[in-house]
Amino acid sequence: MGRLAATPEPPYYVVVFSSTSSDDTDGYGPMAQRMEELAAEQPGFLGFESASERGTGGIGIAVSYWDSEEAIAAWKANAEHTSARDTGRARWYDAYELRVARVERAYSWRRDAPSS
Amino acid sequence: MGRLAATPEPPYYVVVFSSTSSDDTDGYGPMAQRMEELAAEQPGFLGFESASERGTGGIGIAVSYWDSEEAIAAWKANAEHTSARDTGRARWYDAYELRVARVERAYSWRRDAPSS
Repeated sequence: MGRLAATPEPPYYVVVFSSTSSDDTDGYGPMAQRMEELAAEQPGFLGFESASERGTGGIGIAVSYWDSEEAIAAWKANAEHTSARDTGRARWYDAYELRVARVERAYSWRRDAPSS
Repeated sequence: MGRLAATPEPPYYVVVFSSTSSDDTDGYGPMAQRMEELAAEQPGFLGFESASERGTGGIGIAVSYWDSEEAIAAWKANAEHTSARDTGRARWYDAYELRVARVERAYSWRRDAPSS
């Protein structure tokens, strides 16, 4: 557990980044981990979720949550993020789709109530 | 490849369904496959992407795209979908988050231009 993002009441924003892998995976894992950590330090960051089925042609989905479009624009412009994106296009990805959306409604479900 | 959704120009809608698994995975895979096929038959369906790291506590992210909030509401009310959701809460999921968002902007990147 602990891998679902605890986001505030809508409205807020989501970036859905869906990608397929090339056959070059060297260095991908550490970069992805670093980007998750770096994103979490940015102003307006609300949360992050990801799942991936890696290997050539495998799909990965990384979802980040933000309090405004301005926060997303600033994260897009972050120099280390820009460098990682460039390397991703040069090496790790075969294709990707990035979608920016405004969350209108959200529902949570938990099997058990929190124990603390 | 072929697992990224080819969606139209925004605006359109996205449902981001993020879940963590219980230790009961029996029957989960066929249900997930069936729901993907059934969703694709619904009016207003635009596309689907998913990635999962299954096993107890593993995260799965399923993203579906729709042309309107009405299409999402109709899919939510679909009887077979409702039944699968009930079984999911009873057995397969530990927790989930479901977020409905309006896609404002989207970017595609492909390593190679289409060969056909």
